[in-house]
Amino acid sequence: MAQKGNLMIYRPDIKVLDATIRDGGLVNNFFFTDDFVKALYQANIKAGVDYMEFGYKASKDLFDEKAYGKWKFCEEEDIRAIVGDNNTDLKISVMADVGRTDYKRDIIDKKDSVIDMIRVATYINTIPAAIDMIEYCHNKGYETCVNIMAVSTADSKDVEQALEMLGKSSVDVIYLVDSYGSLYPEQVRELTETYCAVAEKYGKKVGMHAHNNQQMAFANTVESVAFGASYLDATMMGMGRGAGNCILEGILGFLRNPRYNVVYVLKFIQEYMLPLKEQGLVWGYEIPYLLTGMLNRHPGPAIDKIKMGDKNYVGFYHVLWDREN
Amino acid sequence: MAQKGNLMIYRPDIKVLDATIRDGGLVNNFFFTDDFVKALYQANIKAGVDYMEFGYKASKDLFDEKAYGKWKFCEEEDIRAIVGDNNTDLKISVMADVGRTDYKRDIIDKKDSVIDMIRVATYINTIPAAIDMIEYCHNKGYETCVNIMAVSTADSKDVEQALEMLGKSSVDVIYLVDSYGSLYPEQVRELTETYCAVAEKYGKKVGMHAHNNQQMAFANTVESVAFGASYLDATMMGMGRGAGNCILEGILGFLRNPRYNVVYVLKFIQEYMLPLKEQGLVWGYEIPYLLTGMLNRHPGPAIDKIKMGDKNYVGFYHVLWDREN
Repeated sequence: MAQKGNLMIYRPDIKVLDATIRDGGLVNNFFFTDDFVKALYQANIKAGVDYMEFGYKASKDLFDEKAYGKWKFCEEEDIRAIVGDNNTDLKISVMADVGRTDYKRDIIDKKDSVIDMIRVATYINTIPAAIDMIEYCHNKGYETCVNIMAVSTADSKDVEQALEMLGKSSVDVIYLVDSYGSLYPEQVRELTETYCAVAEKYGKKVGMHAHNNQQMAFANTVESVAFGASYLDATMMGMGRGAGNCILEGILGFLRNPRYNVVYVLKFIQEYMLPLKEQGLVWGYEIPYLLTGMLNRHPGPAIDKIKMGDKNYVGFYHVLWDREN
Repeated sequence: MAQKGNLMIYRPDIKVLDATIRDGGLVNNFFFTDDFVKALYQANIKAGVDYMEFGYKASKDLFDEKAYGKWKFCEEEDIRAIVGDNNTDLKISVMADVGRTDYKRDIIDKKDSVIDMIRVATYINTIPAAIDMIEYCHNKGYETCVNIMAVSTADSKDVEQALEMLGKSSVDVIYLVDSYGSLYPEQVRELTETYCAVAEKYGKKVGMHAHNNQQMAFANTVESVAFGASYLDATMMGMGRGAGNCILEGILGFLRNPRYNVVYVLKFIQEYMLPLKEQGLVWGYEIPYLLTGMLNRHPGPAIDKIKMGDKNYVGFYHVLWDREN
């Protein structure tokens, strides 16, 4: 294994993506105020963040519009109400789930959109459907990205085959996604090298999306950078489902790239994120997440446990052992 | 760089040290009840933990007995009141700070003590004094250990020289200590390899003591294992000064050694640690610790900031930039 660069230099290929609205939206069903989203957009521009993800491009046929805020759907006019024509260096992305997006209806030509990148989220068993979406979006003129979710549960030979298939597609960036927050740094190093080997062969980039179930989201992101990943997902204060994500305030402090400035992230946190916490939104590491992460399980049962205020960790551990969740 | 072992196997050389009373004592001035310490001792035995650190061997000439609980001083009879003759596989350690321990008076012959290991804590500039203490304790019959604190602020040539000096001493274990929680995994890998190279040359072992200022205590400990460290400090729920330490519940879940059983740690946490939190004891990651860690500073100003309930992170960052703390 070989490291790429070290702490004294910087890697010009690094791109940081703020996923606060998209992954954080899983905490509050995407009910962010326009004031919040506008301030986040401005903070990201000033902090030198490369991409801001506005949310999902979910189909309104499948999800009740009243049950979710607008960033579940990311209509063109809603994004434009925040960014105008987005005459800035900050690029805009949205996530489109395989099977939950009516992409042939809802994803318009890039020339008519302020969106720069479509990120296709897929499990290992829906890679062919993901590739159809990627080709569609690529042909519409977008940068494309694929997030292979829950890779910790996929067989390593399937992962290799999926990477080969994606290598031959038009996708620009392939993301390593630790959905269950179960990967240890040595696994991240190994997977990053596997992804990078294929990416280099086909001229793609590799990204990292980490979860904090075992308090390792930031460390694992840093490890993926050291071993070749260049697209890095993070959120303000790590806001995201369950234990949350890699902390944006951490990753900008770690990176030596001169265009990043962490102070604007700190300013946004104290002015906009702390009030969310005070309003009662809950995310971040707790012991039940450690246990689902440790056992490589979906965090769903841990989220339920924490909502109920149940602190019987021993009982929860037994339940996780005894049943498939 | 070469990894030692991987996640499918286990390393029989691994030793886990529970430092809950010692590092956690910095949170409550060592005022733990006997009931708490007895239950912790039993939990560690059942969980298969290798060492339990009872506290400091501080001089009563230098510290006011009334201001601290008894584990600041670790009198022989106080330890015996918990462990009797300690006829178990769990070994007992105490920490002795250079300059704060009257070791020639307070450290008795090993044959008369239930203590197994003396851990000498030193800064890089007091290595000769540390070696005097090590030789004294070694000659008294104890296992000995040296913790070189705040290594992130030491010049790397000084570290190399200190390691050579310690290599030639009687010390058994040399600890890498990230007092400020400022090290990133790639630095931990590099330092672990530096420490291990000297340790192998002289027949010593290497240990890791991490702090969680940047949410990396557990990840950095895991990284130090992967690159050769074998003595690992951790505490229940990460209890320790400021942002706290590596989580014992995490490290036992990570290690594949068959003698460890994390369930007894979970049981102790829900029965004994959660009440400490409810009583108002405060430790664990917060943004001010990220900032002191990021800037490689002592966490003192962050501890003060958090005690005051001051959430002006931007102002704090400016102050840290502008002055030496």
